[in-house]
Amino acid sequence: MIEADEILKAFNFRHACKVFDPHKKIPDKTFETILESARLSPSSFGFEPWRFLVVQDPALREALLPVTWGAQRSLPTASHFVVILARKQPTLLWNSDYISHMMYEVHHLPPEMAEARRQMYRKFQEEDFRLLESERATFDWAGKQCYIALGNMMSVAAMLGVDSCAVEGFDAQALEKVMKERFDLDTKTFGVAVMVAFGYRIEEPKPKTRQRMEAIVEWR
Amino acid sequence: MIEADEILKAFNFRHACKVFDPHKKIPDKTFETILESARLSPSSFGFEPWRFLVVQDPALREALLPVTWGAQRSLPTASHFVVILARKQPTLLWNSDYISHMMYEVHHLPPEMAEARRQMYRKFQEEDFRLLESERATFDWAGKQCYIALGNMMSVAAMLGVDSCAVEGFDAQALEKVMKERFDLDTKTFGVAVMVAFGYRIEEPKPKTRQRMEAIVEWR
Repeated sequence: MIEADEILKAFNFRHACKVFDPHKKIPDKTFETILESARLSPSSFGFEPWRFLVVQDPALREALLPVTWGAQRSLPTASHFVVILARKQPTLLWNSDYISHMMYEVHHLPPEMAEARRQMYRKFQEEDFRLLESERATFDWAGKQCYIALGNMMSVAAMLGVDSCAVEGFDAQALEKVMKERFDLDTKTFGVAVMVAFGYRIEEPKPKTRQRMEAIVEWR
Repeated sequence: MIEADEILKAFNFRHACKVFDPHKKIPDKTFETILESARLSPSSFGFEPWRFLVVQDPALREALLPVTWGAQRSLPTASHFVVILARKQPTLLWNSDYISHMMYEVHHLPPEMAEARRQMYRKFQEEDFRLLESERATFDWAGKQCYIALGNMMSVAAMLGVDSCAVEGFDAQALEKVMKERFDLDTKTFGVAVMVAFGYRIEEPKPKTRQRMEAIVEWR
Protein backbone atom coordinates (compact mmCIF):
# COMPACT_ATOMS: atom_id res chain seq x y z
CA MET A 1 0.00 0.00 0.00
CA ILE A 2 1.14 3.50 -0.82
CA GLU A 3 0.10 6.61 1.11
CA ALA A 4 -2.60 8.71 -0.59
CA ASP A 5 -0.55 11.84 0.02
CA GLU A 6 2.47 10.37 -1.76
CA ILE A 7 0.32 9.43 -4.75
CA LEU A 8 -1.28 12.86 -5.03
CA LYS A 9 2.10 14.53 -4.65
CA ALA A 10 3.16 12.67 -7.82
CA PHE A 11 -0.05 13.68 -9.65
CA ASN A 12 0.64 17.30 -8.76
CA PHE A 13 4.32 16.98 -9.74
CA ARG A 14 3.37 15.72 -13.23
CA HIS A 15 2.84 18.37 -15.88
CA ALA A 16 3.24 18.59 -19.64
CA CYS A 17 7.01 19.11 -19.65
CA LYS A 18 7.81 20.66 -23.03
CA VAL A 19 11.60 20.79 -22.73
CA PHE A 20 14.06 18.63 -20.80
CA ASP A 21 17.57 18.91 -19.44
CA PRO A 22 19.57 17.38 -22.32
CA HIS A 23 22.37 16.33 -19.95
CA LYS A 24 20.27 14.22 -17.61
CA LYS A 25 19.54 10.59 -18.47
CA ILE A 26 16.91 8.45 -16.77
CA PRO A 27 18.64 5.48 -15.03
CA ASP A 28 17.98 2.15 -16.79
CA LYS A 29 16.23 0.63 -13.78
CA THR A 30 13.87 3.62 -13.57
CA PHE A 31 12.97 3.50 -17.25
CA GLU A 32 12.41 -0.26 -17.01
CA THR A 33 9.86 0.39 -14.27
CA ILE A 34 8.06 2.85 -16.53
CA LEU A 35 8.00 0.29 -19.36
CA GLU A 36 6.88 -2.41 -16.95
CA SER A 37 3.90 -0.24 -15.94
CA ALA A 38 2.95 -0.12 -19.63
CA ARG A 39 3.39 -3.85 -20.05
CA LEU A 40 1.21 -4.60 -17.01
CA SER A 41 -1.51 -2.14 -18.05
CA PRO A 42 -4.94 -3.61 -18.63
CA SER A 43 -6.47 -3.70 -22.09
CA SER A 44 -9.82 -4.75 -23.51
CA PHE A 45 -10.07 -8.57 -23.54
CA GLY A 46 -6.39 -8.53 -22.53
CA PHE A 47 -5.43 -8.20 -26.21
CA GLU A 48 -2.62 -5.66 -25.61
CA PRO A 49 -3.05 -4.00 -29.03
CA TRP A 50 0.11 -1.94 -28.57
CA ARG A 51 3.84 -1.67 -29.21
CA PHE A 52 6.35 0.77 -27.78
CA LEU A 53 9.16 2.16 -29.93
CA VAL A 54 11.82 3.79 -27.80
CA VAL A 55 13.47 6.21 -30.22
CA GLN A 56 16.99 7.08 -29.08
CA ASP A 57 18.86 7.42 -32.38
CA PRO A 58 19.27 11.19 -32.98
CA ALA A 59 18.85 10.73 -36.74
CA LEU A 60 15.49 9.00 -36.23
CA ARG A 61 14.36 11.66 -33.77
CA GLU A 62 15.31 14.25 -36.37
CA ALA A 63 13.20 12.43 -38.94
CA LEU A 64 10.19 12.87 -36.66
CA LEU A 65 10.80 16.58 -36.14
CA PRO A 66 9.24 18.00 -39.34
CA VAL A 67 5.95 16.14 -38.82
CA THR A 68 5.68 16.48 -35.02
CA TRP A 69 4.98 20.11 -34.13
CA GLY A 70 4.09 19.13 -30.57
CA ALA A 71 7.59 17.86 -29.78
CA GLN A 72 9.87 20.50 -31.27
CA ARG A 73 11.65 21.04 -27.98
CA SER A 74 11.21 17.60 -26.42
CA LEU A 75 12.49 15.53 -29.37
CA PRO A 76 16.02 16.96 -29.12
CA THR A 77 16.16 17.06 -25.32
CA ALA A 78 14.20 14.09 -23.93
CA SER A 79 16.14 11.37 -22.17
CA HIS A 80 13.77 8.79 -23.66
CA PHE A 81 11.22 9.31 -26.44
CA VAL A 82 8.53 6.69 -27.00
CA VAL A 83 6.26 6.26 -30.02
CA ILE A 84 3.24 4.22 -28.95
CA LEU A 85 1.86 2.13 -31.80
CA ALA A 86 -1.67 0.78 -31.94
CA ARG A 87 -2.76 -2.21 -33.99
CA LYS A 88 -4.97 -1.73 -37.02
CA GLN A 89 -8.00 -3.72 -38.07
CA PRO A 90 -6.41 -6.74 -39.85
CA THR A 91 -4.70 -8.20 -36.78
CA LEU A 92 -7.56 -7.24 -34.46
CA LEU A 93 -10.35 -9.00 -36.32
CA TRP A 94 -12.03 -11.64 -34.16
CA ASN A 95 -10.72 -14.41 -36.45
CA SER A 96 -7.17 -13.07 -36.89
CA ASP A 97 -3.98 -14.99 -36.13
CA TYR A 98 -2.98 -12.32 -33.61
CA ILE A 99 -6.14 -12.80 -31.56
CA SER A 100 -5.59 -16.57 -31.63
CA HIS A 101 -1.98 -16.05 -30.58
CA MET A 102 -3.04 -13.90 -27.62
CA MET A 103 -5.69 -16.35 -26.43
CA TYR A 104 -3.66 -19.54 -26.90
CA GLU A 105 0.01 -18.62 -26.44
CA VAL A 106 -0.32 -15.68 -24.03
CA HIS A 107 -3.54 -16.25 -22.06
CA HIS A 108 -3.11 -20.05 -22.25
CA LEU A 109 -6.86 -20.59 -22.61
CA PRO A 110 -8.11 -24.11 -23.30
CA PRO A 111 -9.71 -24.37 -26.77
CA GLU A 112 -13.37 -24.30 -25.65
CA MET A 113 -12.82 -21.22 -23.51
CA ALA A 114 -10.82 -19.52 -26.23
CA GLU A 115 -13.49 -20.13 -28.84
CA ALA A 116 -16.29 -18.98 -26.53
CA ARG A 117 -14.27 -15.84 -25.83
CA ARG A 118 -13.71 -15.33 -29.55
CA GLN A 119 -17.47 -15.30 -30.09
CA MET A 120 -17.93 -12.76 -27.28
CA TYR A 121 -15.26 -10.61 -28.86
CA ARG A 122 -16.89 -11.03 -32.28
CA LYS A 123 -20.22 -9.83 -30.93
CA PHE A 124 -18.49 -6.96 -29.13
CA GLN A 125 -16.62 -5.99 -32.28
CA GLU A 126 -19.48 -6.41 -34.73
CA GLU A 127 -22.45 -5.31 -32.63
CA ASP A 128 -21.82 -3.79 -29.20
CA PHE A 129 -19.15 -1.28 -30.21
CA ARG A 130 -19.57 -1.56 -34.02
CA LEU A 131 -15.81 -1.46 -34.40
CA LEU A 132 -15.93 -2.81 -37.95
CA GLU A 133 -17.89 0.25 -39.07
CA SER A 134 -14.59 1.68 -40.32
CA GLU A 135 -10.87 0.95 -40.11
CA ARG A 136 -10.56 4.10 -38.09
CA ALA A 137 -13.08 2.89 -35.49
CA THR A 138 -11.01 -0.24 -34.85
CA PHE A 139 -7.74 1.71 -34.78
CA ASP A 140 -9.18 4.30 -32.38
CA TRP A 141 -10.39 1.51 -30.10
CA ALA A 142 -6.86 0.05 -30.03
CA GLY A 143 -5.63 3.59 -29.45
CA LYS A 144 -7.84 3.89 -26.36
CA GLN A 145 -6.10 0.89 -24.81
CA CYS A 146 -2.76 2.56 -25.60
CA TYR A 147 -3.89 5.62 -23.65
CA ILE A 148 -4.34 3.47 -20.54
CA ALA A 149 -0.67 2.49 -20.85
CA LEU A 150 0.23 6.09 -21.67
CA GLY A 151 -1.45 7.40 -18.53
CA ASN A 152 0.20 4.75 -16.38
CA MET A 153 3.65 5.47 -17.82
CA MET A 154 3.35 9.20 -17.08
CA SER A 155 1.98 8.67 -13.56
CA VAL A 156 4.62 6.09 -12.70
CA ALA A 157 7.33 8.37 -14.12
CA ALA A 158 6.11 11.16 -11.83
CA MET A 159 6.20 8.81 -8.84
CA LEU A 160 9.84 8.13 -9.70
CA GLY A 161 10.63 11.84 -10.06
CA VAL A 162 10.69 11.73 -13.86
CA ASP A 163 8.97 14.32 -16.04
CA SER A 164 7.01 13.54 -19.16
CA CYS A 165 4.90 14.97 -21.94
CA ALA A 166 2.33 13.19 -24.06
CA VAL A 167 2.47 14.24 -27.70
CA GLU A 168 -0.58 14.31 -29.95
CA GLY A 169 0.83 17.23 -31.93
CA PHE A 170 1.65 15.53 -35.20
CA ASP A 171 0.34 15.34 -38.73
CA ALA A 172 -0.99 11.77 -38.66
CA GLN A 173 -0.71 11.13 -42.40
CA ALA A 174 2.75 12.67 -42.83
CA LEU A 175 3.98 10.81 -39.77
CA GLU A 176 2.75 7.50 -41.12
CA LYS A 177 4.87 8.08 -44.21
CA VAL A 178 7.94 8.75 -42.03
CA MET A 179 7.24 5.66 -39.94
CA LYS A 180 7.08 3.55 -43.08
CA GLU A 181 10.11 5.00 -44.82
CA ARG A 182 12.48 5.67 -41.94
CA PHE A 183 11.35 3.13 -39.32
CA ASP A 184 10.38 0.31 -41.71
CA LEU A 185 7.06 0.13 -39.89
CA ASP A 186 4.49 -2.28 -41.28
CA THR A 187 1.79 0.37 -41.59
CA LYS A 188 -0.85 -2.18 -42.56
CA THR A 189 -0.52 -3.62 -39.05
CA PHE A 190 0.43 -0.64 -36.88
CA GLY A 191 -0.16 3.09 -36.76
CA VAL A 192 0.97 5.76 -34.31
CA ALA A 193 -1.52 6.21 -31.47
CA VAL A 194 0.41 8.83 -29.52
CA MET A 195 3.96 9.66 -28.42
CA VAL A 196 5.44 10.43 -25.03
CA ALA A 197 8.71 12.07 -24.00
CA PHE A 198 10.49 11.44 -20.69
CA GLY A 199 13.31 13.29 -18.96
CA TYR A 200 13.99 15.93 -16.34
CA ARG A 201 12.59 19.48 -16.30
CA ILE A 202 14.79 22.56 -16.56
CA GLU A 203 12.05 25.06 -15.73
CA GLU A 204 9.25 25.04 -13.19
CA PRO A 205 5.76 24.68 -14.64
CA LYS A 206 2.90 27.13 -14.34
CA PRO A 207 0.36 26.29 -11.61
CA LYS A 208 -1.90 23.40 -12.56
CA THR A 209 -5.38 24.31 -13.81
CA ARG A 210 -8.32 21.94 -13.63
CA GLN A 211 -12.09 22.06 -13.46
CA ARG A 212 -13.34 21.71 -9.89
CA MET A 213 -14.40 18.30 -8.67
CA GLU A 214 -18.09 19.37 -8.60
CA ALA A 215 -17.89 20.25 -12.30
CA ILE A 216 -16.81 16.79 -13.40
CA VAL A 217 -18.22 14.35 -10.84
CA GLU A 218 -21.88 13.60 -10.26
CA TRP A 219 -23.17 11.18 -7.64
CA ARG A 220 -26.31 9.27 -8.48
CA MET B 1 9.26 9.77 -4.63
CA ILE B 2 7.82 6.28 -4.35
CA GLU B 3 9.86 3.07 -4.47
CA ALA B 4 9.77 1.23 -7.81
CA ASP B 5 9.06 -2.03 -5.99
CA GLU B 6 6.01 -0.55 -4.27
CA ILE B 7 4.67 0.71 -7.60
CA LEU B 8 5.13 -2.62 -9.37
CA LYS B 9 3.60 -4.44 -6.43
CA ALA B 10 0.43 -2.41 -7.08
CA PHE B 11 0.54 -3.13 -10.82
CA ASN B 12 0.77 -6.83 -10.05
CA PHE B 13 -2.00 -6.60 -7.44
CA ARG B 14 -4.39 -5.03 -9.97
CA HIS B 15 -6.46 -7.44 -12.03
CA ALA B 16 -9.85 -7.39 -13.70
CA CYS B 17 -11.89 -8.06 -10.56
CA LYS B 18 -15.24 -9.38 -11.78
CA VAL B 19 -17.03 -9.70 -8.43
CA PHE B 20 -16.61 -7.80 -5.18
CA ASP B 21 -17.34 -8.33 -1.51
CA PRO B 22 -20.77 -6.67 -1.22
CA HIS B 23 -20.21 -5.93 2.47
CA LYS B 24 -17.03 -3.91 2.11
CA LYS B 25 -17.22 -0.21 1.32
CA ILE B 26 -14.29 1.90 0.17
CA PRO B 27 -13.63 4.65 2.77
CA ASP B 28 -14.60 8.14 1.55
CA LYS B 29 -11.06 9.49 1.77
CA THR B 30 -9.76 6.60 -0.35
CA PHE B 31 -12.38 7.04 -3.05
CA GLU B 32 -11.72 10.79 -3.10
CA THR B 33 -8.07 10.04 -3.87
CA ILE B 34 -9.14 7.84 -6.78
CA LEU B 35 -11.38 10.61 -8.11
CA GLU B 36 -8.63 13.17 -7.60
CA SER B 37 -6.28 11.06 -9.74
CA ALA B 38 -8.89 11.25 -12.50
CA ARG B 39 -9.33 14.98 -12.07
CA LEU B 40 -5.58 15.60 -12.24
CA SER B 41 -5.11 13.34 -15.27
CA PRO B 42 -3.71 14.99 -18.38
CA SER B 43 -5.82 15.42 -21.50
CA SER B 44 -5.20 16.72 -25.00
CA PHE B 45 -4.94 20.53 -24.93
CA GLY B 46 -6.04 20.28 -21.29
CA PHE B 47 -9.67 20.19 -22.44
CA GLU B 48 -10.76 17.48 -19.95
CA PRO B 49 -13.48 16.09 -22.24
CA TRP B 50 -14.88 13.88 -19.48
CA ARG B 51 -17.40 13.50 -16.70
CA PHE B 52 -17.65 10.86 -13.99
CA LEU B 53 -21.02 9.52 -12.87
CA VAL B 54 -20.71 7.61 -9.61
CA VAL B 55 -23.72 5.32 -9.68
CA GLN B 56 -24.66 4.22 -6.17
CA ASP B 57 -28.48 4.05 -6.38
CA PRO B 58 -29.35 0.33 -6.61
CA ALA B 59 -32.29 1.11 -8.93
CA LEU B 60 -29.99 2.92 -11.36
CA ARG B 61 -27.44 0.12 -11.22
CA GLU B 62 -30.24 -2.28 -12.00
CA ALA B 63 -31.21 -0.17 -15.00
CA LEU B 64 -27.69 -0.68 -16.37
CA LEU B 65 -27.74 -4.43 -15.87
CA PRO B 66 -29.68 -5.54 -18.98
CA VAL B 67 -27.40 -3.58 -21.35
CA THR B 68 -24.07 -4.20 -19.60
CA TRP B 69 -23.11 -7.85 -20.00
CA GLY B 70 -19.58 -7.12 -18.80
CA ALA B 71 -20.72 -6.05 -15.33
CA GLN B 72 -23.29 -8.69 -14.39
CA ARG B 73 -21.47 -9.55 -11.19
CA SER B 74 -19.79 -6.22 -10.46
CA LEU B 75 -22.88 -3.99 -10.79
CA PRO B 76 -24.61 -5.58 -7.78
CA THR B 77 -21.46 -5.98 -5.67
CA ALA B 78 -19.13 -3.04 -6.35
CA SER B 79 -18.57 -0.54 -3.58
CA HIS B 80 -18.45 2.24 -6.18
CA PHE B 81 -19.47 2.04 -9.82
CA VAL B 82 -18.40 4.80 -12.20
CA VAL B 83 -19.73 5.56 -15.68
CA ILE B 84 -17.13 7.64 -17.51
CA LEU B 85 -18.72 10.00 -20.01
CA ALA B 86 -16.90 11.50 -22.99
CA ARG B 87 -17.93 14.69 -24.75
CA LYS B 88 -19.34 14.54 -28.25
CA GLN B 89 -18.52 16.74 -31.22
CA PRO B 90 -20.74 19.81 -30.59
CA THR B 91 -19.00 20.94 -27.40
CA LEU B 92 -15.56 19.94 -28.66
CA LEU B 93 -15.57 21.96 -31.89
CA TRP B 94 -12.74 24.51 -31.96
CA ASN B 95 -15.25 27.36 -31.85
CA SER B 96 -17.57 25.91 -29.19
CA ASP B 97 -18.54 27.62 -25.94
CA TYR B 98 -17.06 24.75 -23.96
CA ILE B 99 -13.61 25.19 -25.52
CA SER B 100 -13.81 28.93 -24.80
CA HIS B 101 -14.86 28.17 -21.23
CA MET B 102 -11.89 25.85 -20.74
CA MET B 103 -9.38 28.33 -22.16
CA TYR B 104 -10.72 31.44 -20.45
CA GLU B 105 -12.30 30.33 -17.17
CA VAL B 106 -10.22 27.25 -16.39
CA HIS B 107 -6.81 27.79 -18.04
CA HIS B 108 -7.03 31.58 -17.48
CA LEU B 109 -5.34 32.31 -20.80
CA PRO B 110 -5.12 35.91 -21.95
CA PRO B 111 -7.18 36.52 -25.12
CA GLU B 112 -4.29 36.53 -27.63
CA MET B 113 -2.91 33.26 -26.25
CA ALA B 114 -6.34 31.69 -26.14
CA GLU B 115 -7.11 32.62 -29.74
CA ALA B 116 -3.70 31.40 -30.98
CA ARG B 117 -4.33 28.15 -29.13
CA ARG B 118 -7.79 27.89 -30.65
CA GLN B 119 -6.25 28.07 -34.13
CA MET B 120 -3.73 25.34 -33.23
CA TYR B 121 -6.58 23.20 -31.97
CA ARG B 122 -8.59 23.96 -35.11
CA LYS B 123 -5.72 22.78 -37.32
CA PHE B 124 -5.24 19.73 -35.11
CA GLN B 125 -8.94 18.91 -35.28
CA GLU B 126 -9.47 19.64 -38.96
CA GLU B 127 -6.16 18.52 -40.45
CA ASP B 128 -3.66 16.71 -38.21
CA PHE B 129 -6.04 14.16 -36.70
CA ARG B 130 -9.03 14.77 -39.03
CA LEU B 131 -11.36 14.54 -36.07
CA LEU B 132 -14.24 16.15 -37.93
CA GLU B 133 -14.27 13.27 -40.42
CA SER B 134 -17.14 11.83 -38.39
CA GLU B 135 -18.91 12.36 -35.08
CA ARG B 136 -17.50 9.04 -34.00
CA ALA B 137 -13.91 10.17 -34.66
CA THR B 138 -14.35 13.15 -32.34
CA PHE B 139 -16.10 11.05 -29.68
CA ASP B 140 -13.42 8.36 -29.83
CA TRP B 141 -10.72 11.01 -29.44
CA ALA B 142 -12.48 12.31 -26.31
CA GLY B 143 -12.79 8.69 -25.23
CA LYS B 144 -9.02 8.23 -25.49
CA GLN B 145 -8.51 11.03 -22.98
CA CYS B 146 -11.03 9.29 -20.70
CA TYR B 147 -8.91 6.14 -20.85
CA ILE B 148 -5.96 8.07 -19.42
CA ALA B 149 -8.12 8.91 -16.41
CA LEU B 150 -9.45 5.33 -16.35
CA GLY B 151 -5.93 3.88 -16.22
CA ASN B 152 -4.90 6.27 -13.48
CA MET B 153 -7.98 5.51 -11.39
CA MET B 154 -7.36 1.76 -11.53
CA SER B 155 -3.63 2.08 -10.79
CA VAL B 156 -4.20 4.47 -7.91
CA ALA B 157 -6.92 2.19 -6.56
CA ALA B 158 -4.46 -0.72 -6.58
CA MET B 159 -1.89 1.39 -4.74
CA LEU B 160 -4.53 1.98 -2.07
CA GLY B 161 -5.40 -1.72 -1.88
CA VAL B 162 -8.64 -1.31 -3.82
CA ASP B 163 -9.69 -3.66 -6.63
CA SER B 164 -11.25 -2.55 -9.87
CA CYS B 165 -12.54 -3.68 -13.23
CA ALA B 166 -12.89 -1.63 -16.39
CA VAL B 167 -16.09 -2.41 -18.27
CA GLU B 168 -16.38 -2.17 -22.05
CA GLY B 169 -18.91 -4.98 -22.13
CA PHE B 170 -22.05 -3.08 -23.02
CA ASP B 171 -24.32 -2.55 -25.99
CA ALA B 172 -23.41 1.05 -26.80
CA GLN B 173 -26.69 1.96 -28.49
CA ALA B 174 -28.96 0.32 -25.92
CA LEU B 175 -26.94 1.87 -23.10
CA GLU B 176 -27.29 5.33 -24.61
CA LYS B 177 -31.04 4.91 -24.49
CA VAL B 178 -30.89 3.94 -20.79
CA MET B 179 -28.61 6.90 -20.06
CA LYS B 180 -31.10 9.23 -21.67
CA GLU B 181 -34.23 7.78 -20.15
CA ARG B 182 -33.08 6.81 -16.68
CA PHE B 183 -30.16 9.17 -16.05
CA ASP B 184 -31.56 12.21 -17.90
CA LEU B 185 -28.24 12.39 -19.74
CA ASP B 186 -27.95 15.02 -22.45
CA THR B 187 -26.88 12.51 -25.11
CA LYS B 188 -26.17 15.25 -27.65
CA THR B 189 -23.32 16.39 -25.40
CA PHE B 190 -22.13 13.21 -23.70
CA GLY B 191 -21.86 9.51 -24.42
CA VAL B 192 -20.51 6.62 -22.37
CA ALA B 193 -16.80 6.05 -23.01
CA VAL B 194 -16.30 3.21 -20.56
CA MET B 195 -17.29 2.15 -17.04
CA VAL B 196 -15.25 1.06 -14.07
CA ALA B 197 -16.18 -0.79 -10.88
CA PHE B 198 -14.30 -0.49 -7.57
CA GLY B 199 -14.42 -2.58 -4.42
CA TYR B 200 -12.69 -5.46 -2.67
CA ARG B 201 -12.05 -8.92 -4.09
CA ILE B 202 -13.58 -12.07 -2.62
CA GLU B 203 -11.52 -14.52 -4.66
CA GLU B 204 -7.88 -14.55 -5.69
CA PRO B 205 -7.23 -13.95 -9.39
CA LYS B 206 -5.57 -16.28 -11.85
CA PRO B 207 -1.86 -15.57 -12.47
CA LYS B 208 -1.34 -12.51 -14.66
CA THR B 209 -0.60 -13.16 -18.34
CA ARG B 210 1.23 -10.69 -20.57
CA GLN B 211 3.37 -10.67 -23.67
CA ARG B 212 7.07 -10.56 -22.82
CA MET B 213 8.82 -7.20 -22.79
CA GLU B 214 10.78 -8.10 -25.96
CA ALA B 215 7.52 -8.71 -27.82
CA ILE B 216 6.16 -5.23 -27.20
CA VAL B 217 9.18 -2.94 -26.86
CA GLU B 218 11.65 -2.08 -29.60
CA TRP B 219 14.65 0.18 -29.11
CA ARG B 220 15.69 2.29 -32.05
